[in-house]
Amino acid sequence: MRERIEAANAQAVGRITSADPVLIDIAPAGEVIPGLVGRMILHSGPPVGWSRMCGAQRGACIGMVLFEGWAKNPAEAEQLLASGAITLEPNHHHQAVGPMAGTITRSLPVFVVKDTASGSRACCRQVEGRQQFGDYSDEALDGLRRWRDVWAPSLRQGIQQKGGVTLRPIIAKALQMGDELHNRPVAATTLFADVMALAMVEAGVSKNNLLATLAHLTYNEFFFLGLSMASAKAFCDAAAGIAYSTVVTAMARNGTEFGIRVSGLGDEWYTAPAPRIDGLYLTGYSADDAGLDMGDSAITETVGWGGFVLGGAPGILSLIGGTSEQAMQISRDMGEITVATHPTYRIPALGFVGAPVGIDIVKVMRSGIVPVIDTAIAHKDPGYPKIGAGMVRAPSECFEKALQAYARRYGLS
Amino acid sequence: MRERIEAANAQAVGRITSADPVLIDIAPAGEVIPGLVGRMILHSGPPVGWSRMCGAQRGACIGMVLFEGWAKNPAEAEQLLASGAITLEPNHHHQAVGPMAGTITRSLPVFVVKDTASGSRACCRQVEGRQQFGDYSDEALDGLRRWRDVWAPSLRQGIQQKGGVTLRPIIAKALQMGDELHNRPVAATTLFADVMALAMVEAGVSKNNLLATLAHLTYNEFFFLGLSMASAKAFCDAAAGIAYSTVVTAMARNGTEFGIRVSGLGDEWYTAPAPRIDGLYLTGYSADDAGLDMGDSAITETVGWGGFVLGGAPGILSLIGGTSEQAMQISRDMGEITVATHPTYRIPALGFVGAPVGIDIVKVMRSGIVPVIDTAIAHKDPGYPKIGAGMVRAPSECFEKALQAYARRYGLS
Repeated sequence: MRERIEAANAQAVGRITSADPVLIDIAPAGEVIPGLVGRMILHSGPPVGWSRMCGAQRGACIGMVLFEGWAKNPAEAEQLLASGAITLEPNHHHQAVGPMAGTITRSLPVFVVKDTASGSRACCRQVEGRQQFGDYSDEALDGLRRWRDVWAPSLRQGIQQKGGVTLRPIIAKALQMGDELHNRPVAATTLFADVMALAMVEAGVSKNNLLATLAHLTYNEFFFLGLSMASAKAFCDAAAGIAYSTVVTAMARNGTEFGIRVSGLGDEWYTAPAPRIDGLYLTGYSADDAGLDMGDSAITETVGWGGFVLGGAPGILSLIGGTSEQAMQISRDMGEITVATHPTYRIPALGFVGAPVGIDIVKVMRSGIVPVIDTAIAHKDPGYPKIGAGMVRAPSECFEKALQAYARRYGLS
Repeated sequence: MRERIEAANAQAVGRITSADPVLIDIAPAGEVIPGLVGRMILHSGPPVGWSRMCGAQRGACIGMVLFEGWAKNPAEAEQLLASGAITLEPNHHHQAVGPMAGTITRSLPVFVVKDTASGSRACCRQVEGRQQFGDYSDEALDGLRRWRDVWAPSLRQGIQQKGGVTLRPIIAKALQMGDELHNRPVAATTLFADVMALAMVEAGVSKNNLLATLAHLTYNEFFFLGLSMASAKAFCDAAAGIAYSTVVTAMARNGTEFGIRVSGLGDEWYTAPAPRIDGLYLTGYSADDAGLDMGDSAITETVGWGGFVLGGAPGILSLIGGTSEQAMQISRDMGEITVATHPTYRIPALGFVGAPVGIDIVKVMRSGIVPVIDTAIAHKDPGYPKIGAGMVRAPSECFEKALQAYARRYGLS
């Protein structure tokens, strides 16, 4: 039995470490996300209805209803959402992920990343600091419209010109430049910008659109998070559904619940109440304003980035707090609950050891060490932009429930 | 007396830490470097004639003679150089610096950086991996011609469009992205590329030149070293010539000698034989092939980058050898021989402490700790490209001689 589990886990983690992500398109979600039809909003985390949805995610949904023109004002949008006329489903049920509230609707262009090793494909929406945090103001929605009308189409031209953008070299290099690819995708963004500048010039993108898009890439350090998330989701889907594997294939939060999925346990979610984040706040906000942990972005930790390689990304500590010694210790701790280190994604500050990959629910329960996620903080109420960032520990209850289900499924005592 | 020295050193280091470097132009050296006239080659390090010049620097001089068309072939070039018909002078005597052999002639475009805080201005040539190492093949010279004819003029258009490029934000950010700005200017190069992409598009650089120049920036990780060197030289010239100051204002090597200058001692060089480098070699080369320490690039260590912030740049260790613990220790050691930490250039891995700035010859002699420089390795003979990279310690003899001269000048015992 033990050998069976180890073999299954080796297979699961092998899918993650051998993955070769390529950005193949940026296209309206309705054209590329399976099952995203009509008046549907995809959201982050495990399933949650409107009545239990947290403030920030509600605000983001209101924003998407307005963005799609399904309602004329926030009150009408809220009414529509409360009436059940808008279908709400998790991104994770549609081969997709989204940062923070994670909201995706049919008109919103999304990144399409294909793992050419497994053939697995996943989508993620763009990253910004307002609407995805629950801000549905006209200024917040303007960012979505600029993305839809200018930035996304210009980048798409570049991607088509190149025939796809291979992301592995960018990811590997960025991890050696102090990125952890979750809350610090700074190097990856600038490396991606270099590649896309060439591609967009080559493709003949108009001067105005080129300038606007290059400026967006240059002054939006979080840009690449959408690509690390889409990549990670593609890897995890490739690693999912392997009988006997105890490797985690999703960690996702909706601000109400934190949920995980496990390779050997199919599509089932194992949930616990979303935890509170320990972090630093932007001027004018405090812990009293904070919503609970939210977003699909913990998919980056699921493949060994984010909190798992914090020791290699001390620059992030000015954003989330803590010392570089603590960051190193967290990375070492994450090594205790994973089944492998990545052969290519190596961290100089950790002696060029590979990123710890493949969270094992058995190791988590045995060691008492839970995954550490570095994350942004949204307001508890609808209508606010980003208010801070910090660190959060995954609830052990999720792993406990998963292990119980595993025991039932595979007949362990 | 002690207070007088401390005040002078505070003034000198203040010039370095308050510097605000702006790239104001890229122009043919003959137009912007004072005193660079006729058949003159500027070289790295303290003064050295042809007869004592090391192999790599000889090779680089042959390359420049061919590049300028002063001779038709290498043999003729060598003859001309040996005859004394070509004037050889140090870059440092002309408000300039150059990496490795450091050779600059009138047609070669150079970066012009102005420190807007002090008004000090310095130039540096571009960085490449062949001619500056002594390779005078036609392929090596092609790189110089592409720089002169395509890359430099295109970048110049962008710089003029922007009215200058402020470098402080790029430098500060790069130091938080694992750069040490000497042998690892990777992040700075890509950040600079982002800024220049926008500027060149805005300036209307032709599509072909734009593509060629963006590709050069994207695939030449060392590009920014020319800018960190020009910046550092401008800072150091601003800090030079302050009576009583024991702060080092130049460390430079020509492959034959290592020389330093000290603020309170004017333009005098204090020299020792160039040391051997402890490093890693590219395939096909070994320590038997290596020339001695060469290049003006130690001007980056002189302002607290390079070896001084090695602890924040562990990615470089794959290039030069060593462990991240050793790198951290070197940075801490450099703190022992400097008079300040930089208020803006802070290193996350070192707890966001500022880079150690202002090498004090008294502290060096008292502690027995000498500056550590990470550097590239050239061949001992003319005609080769880059063969490796490693670490080198400045000879204590330079500091000893300087301290003796200081004692004579200021009447200390």
